[in-house]
Amino acid sequence: MPLTPEQEAEIAAQRATASPTLRATAPGMEAHLYTAHPVLDHGLVRVIDYMGDDAAICQAARVSYGRGTKAVSDDRGLIRYLMRHWHSTPFEMCEVKFHVKLPVFVARQWIRHRTANVNEYSARYSILDREFYIPAPENLAAQSTVNNQGRGQVLEGAEAARVLDLLREDAMRSYDHYEDMLTPDAEAGKLGLARELARMNLPANIYTQWYWKIDLHNLFHFLRLRADTHAQYEIRVYAETMCAIVKDWVPAAYEAFEDYRLGGVSLSGKAVEVLKRRLAGEAVTQETSGMSKGEWREFIGIWG
Amino acid sequence: MPLTPEQEAEIAAQRATASPTLRATAPGMEAHLYTAHPVLDHGLVRVIDYMGDDAAICQAARVSYGRGTKAVSDDRGLIRYLMRHWHSTPFEMCEVKFHVKLPVFVARQWIRHRTANVNEYSARYSILDREFYIPAPENLAAQSTVNNQGRGQVLEGAEAARVLDLLREDAMRSYDHYEDMLTPDAEAGKLGLARELARMNLPANIYTQWYWKIDLHNLFHFLRLRADTHAQYEIRVYAETMCAIVKDWVPAAYEAFEDYRLGGVSLSGKAVEVLKRRLAGEAVTQETSGMSKGEWREFIGIWG
Amino acid sequence: MPLTPEQEAEIAAQRATASPTLRATAPGMEAHLYTAHPVLDHGLVRVIDYMGDDAAICQAARVSYGRGTKAVSDDRGLIRYLMRHWHSTPFEMCEVKFHVKLPVFVARQWIRHRTANVNEYSARYSILDREFYIPAPENLAAQSTVNNQGRGQVLEGAEAARVLDLLREDAMRSYDHYEDMLTPDAEAGKLGLARELARMNLPANIYTQWYWKIDLHNLFHFLRLRADTHAQYEIRVYAETMCAIVKDWVPAAYEAFEDYRLGGVSLSGKAVEVLKRRLAGEAVTQETSGMSKGEWREFIGIWG
Amino acid sequence: MPLTPEQEAEIAAQRATASPTLRATAPGMEAHLYTAHPVLDHGLVRVIDYMGDDAAICQAARVSYGRGTKAVSDDRGLIRYLMRHWHSTPFEMCEVKFHVKLPVFVARQWIRHRTANVNEYSARYSILDREFYIPAPENLAAQSTVNNQGRGQVLEGAEAARVLDLLREDAMRSYDHYEDMLTPDAEAGKLGLARELARMNLPANIYTQWYWKIDLHNLFHFLRLRADTHAQYEIRVYAETMCAIVKDWVPAAYEAFEDYRLGGVSLSGKAVEVLKRRLAGEAVTQETSGMSKGEWREFIGIWG
Repeated sequence: MPLTPEQEAEIAAQRATASPTLRATAPGMEAHLYTAHPVLDHGLVRVIDYMGDDAAICQAARVSYGRGTKAVSDDRGLIRYLMRHWHSTPFEMCEVKFHVKLPVFVARQWIRHRTANVNEYSARYSILDREFYIPAPENLAAQSTVNNQGRGQVLEGAEAARVLDLLREDAMRSYDHYEDMLTPDAEAGKLGLARELARMNLPANIYTQWYWKIDLHNLFHFLRLRADTHAQYEIRVYAETMCAIVKDWVPAAYEAFEDYRLGGVSLSGKAVEVLKRRLAGEAVTQETSGMSKGEWREFIGIWG
Repeated sequence: MPLTPEQEAEIAAQRATASPTLRATAPGMEAHLYTAHPVLDHGLVRVIDYMGDDAAICQAARVSYGRGTKAVSDDRGLIRYLMRHWHSTPFEMCEVKFHVKLPVFVARQWIRHRTANVNEYSARYSILDREFYIPAPENLAAQSTVNNQGRGQVLEGAEAARVLDLLREDAMRSYDHYEDMLTPDAEAGKLGLARELARMNLPANIYTQWYWKIDLHNLFHFLRLRADTHAQYEIRVYAETMCAIVKDWVPAAYEAFEDYRLGGVSLSGKAVEVLKRRLAGEAVTQETSGMSKGEWREFIGIWG
Repeated sequence: MPLTPEQEAEIAAQRATASPTLRATAPGMEAHLYTAHPVLDHGLVRVIDYMGDDAAICQAARVSYGRGTKAVSDDRGLIRYLMRHWHSTPFEMCEVKFHVKLPVFVARQWIRHRTANVNEYSARYSILDREFYIPAPENLAAQSTVNNQGRGQVLEGAEAARVLDLLREDAMRSYDHYEDMLTPDAEAGKLGLARELARMNLPANIYTQWYWKIDLHNLFHFLRLRADTHAQYEIRVYAETMCAIVKDWVPAAYEAFEDYRLGGVSLSGKAVEVLKRRLAGEAVTQETSGMSKGEWREFIGIWG
Repeated sequence: MPLTPEQEAEIAAQRATASPTLRATAPGMEAHLYTAHPVLDHGLVRVIDYMGDDAAICQAARVSYGRGTKAVSDDRGLIRYLMRHWHSTPFEMCEVKFHVKLPVFVARQWIRHRTANVNEYSARYSILDREFYIPAPENLAAQSTVNNQGRGQVLEGAEAARVLDLLREDAMRSYDHYEDMLTPDAEAGKLGLARELARMNLPANIYTQWYWKIDLHNLFHFLRLRADTHAQYEIRVYAETMCAIVKDWVPAAYEAFEDYRLGGVSLSGKAVEVLKRRLAGEAVTQETSGMSKGEWREFIGIWG
């Protein structure tokens, strides 16, 4: 996403003027403020504001636990303890506000996370820009044959070329007609269609943008689901960009999140029993595991 | 929206079998259950389930207020009192679940109401149907010249015809290409694009559907904003359909909602002062009102 | 909790009158409706209303997944799949409303679960009853010496007797004074203190009551935390009572919840590595595990 | 609430060290940071952190409205417009974190506002301090004779003295017994009761404390209800303290809130009709108003 010179200048201006504050500041996050991280072909993620740092998580936890917590002198250890035991409220004490530019079909998945604040660009009020997501060739994948909700091998040759042509042509034609319908022409007696109606002609790969504000606990929940390998690639790249930012903001919390959530595994009671039997030397099969074929396949995928 | 014979048969079957229950039942709502209320050209609203009735609101209020509330012997009076004084929690004790079929651009507005439960048809997982919203000619309006976010006069003649042609043609072409991209052809070496990618070619007037579950307090909040004359027509017709259903479900609560919210007016402190001066016989002008031009225009719109 | 004859009669009347409904009904839940399940010495849990059943969860999931889901013909298998993959929205499509009578200190823990609807008996508006939780002798435990937030061995003899005496006497005296302060006496020129002030004299073991309404997904979250062995006994017994009710309401969902959540285990990335090394025959110690002492102790507690 | 010298020193230290930040800063709020505002006899409100300012509200609104909004060049006018038209999402883009010390019975009302983040001091984990709210004599009011949920005249003489004595004595005795039950005595074979049990002996006027974090829209909702004259005095003083802080933080937003919400009036459809008839010169009575006696009394209370 090439920024225009005006945008570059605006960001430079925002980054040029520091003010003194008594609030907790996170140096790793100050370095990100306002800077546009490019995502996909025209998307971006920018940090607009943040509240709190690793120490703020511990401070809130120590309000809850009072004097007793002084024993846990180590912030990192306390944060790992909180994450391990699902004590989520101290993580809610940090907050972050992002500016995100993203295709509409990604926005539709994203918005399902309800515990967040959103201001989206309004196509009732304003005219959308002519910017569409067209996948890079390496992301043009076939429907998975084993997963109803996933991708298989990469398309090649004529099929890939045709798909890209169709996506580009349909996007351009839809946008041409959108502009055409919108534009009044007094001489021709043309009034111009209302923006709230004309927008219905635009496909789901057009870009929109919003301000999105969320607390750290709910952001981690979002990242766990959307930075996962099963998430759709086009939202995963946003989640990964945010992961890198959060790591610089609250390094101890992010490390705990990575260990306990992103890299963690949830075992069912059945799976616990099977692992215990295997640890005791038993060769367990799907038939003797009590698991369905689907569960067994997923279990074997992790444990071999 | 013409239902298929299969759908008609399914609804008839659902409506044919009553079970005994000890729960509160609302006869007015039983009459609506499962029946598809058509909205726009292919949309619908159906009640799938409900919990509670007018009496359940009062029952919950009386838990809060204990013995003292017995004085208010009249349920209707109690409900009006609760609504007038913004005591919202008793209204949260009723719940309703709808099946809604609606254009994507309407769904995008709708989903901004976060305090609800949603299961939407997944275009990652399944193939969308070839159904698009095409406005009826009387709803094909020009951009308002006074309101950045509204409609003006109805389009006519050649302009209207051209808009409808463009909407129809672009919808059909996009859907043709969607199907084309999706469909594998082993002989031609064509794999077929993943559903989660192909859907990005579809415009915002394609229909989606979801189950939407919400409590009565939050539903009233939704209806207040979306049954309002400033709401976009295409979402307002859904809200109006729901208003008619809610009126049959909880008549006393709906009557109070209509009086205090839908038909009510919020006055600023400034507006209260102006009205008091006018009641005292003074002729107040914008200049002497302390209001801005915009506020005065809105004030005069209501009070003359 | 001995019900009064009036209460018994009221419940009998509520249970005597069935109405026909077209809604989904759960026979196992109908059997619970209105019946008071006693908890602690004066507490109770009663189901007041419910929406949905196991089939309603699947119905909502199939809206999301559309045609493709028809392959999963088995409701129980689909529900296990949804639970295993944290697909929480179909579980939100069921709702339940409880009447709960509980000590105030339990209510204070309980209310921290925010995604629920509540109407609590108001001590501003009404007078609380003279009912206090006094622990049974076997629940009178010492502070744990290893867990800052837990219980150790049971108190005995003179200490136990003294604690029970203090709790009883302070409760009775506080309530006597509450009544005294409240009661006007015109002859003596006594006005009677406002209820909203007098209540501040009452200790945290006094009983309150509320209507509490929640969707099944959030109820499971509550039950996972509060039916856990680390939860305080006095809230755990409420959670266990609800578990038994939910099992009769949505047997397949409850079975999946029991296997994947209640009986399940969350492993960190570190713990996964250690288990894999042990499965490969390595004898891992805390020193070679990469875990802290606390994590290792918890790990060994499960895996030996 | 006299702060200890240690607390004074801690606050002075926090206020002494400013860091540079690129974030939006609100000078009026920096002046409040960390400073303890005393409330009631031992309570306090302190700002721990904040995000955003008046300009951040406008910035978010302009994301929504895009280019078109540039016409509204004046931030104050835009903020008034947003408040007047219930466009709440831009106000959600500001966030504030408070440290609050408050009596438990106030905390129980406060926590009913669900859309906030809370970390409360845990009496399972730690020992509460011997601090109780004892009303000042001028706040010792009788039960209202006209309002089931309000206060009447101030208690005097012997009755007032007795109430204060009872509150003080019961508080001290309960706390003595709390300490007694908690304290182990190895020689006497006394184990000491678990903290999670001993706390149940403490009355509702004991002080607790928490960190409370909320966005500006939801804070305004809280303040509208709790700074209202019908709110209980003991929570209203907290709300009023926060109003003064918010006024310094976001002056334009607070001014709009004061005009449209705190000082505003909601009229029912019936009330609008009556006012219009009165403006037209008609003398409307309760009988001809269509309002109930209760509504009419409230109507006359405002309009005379």
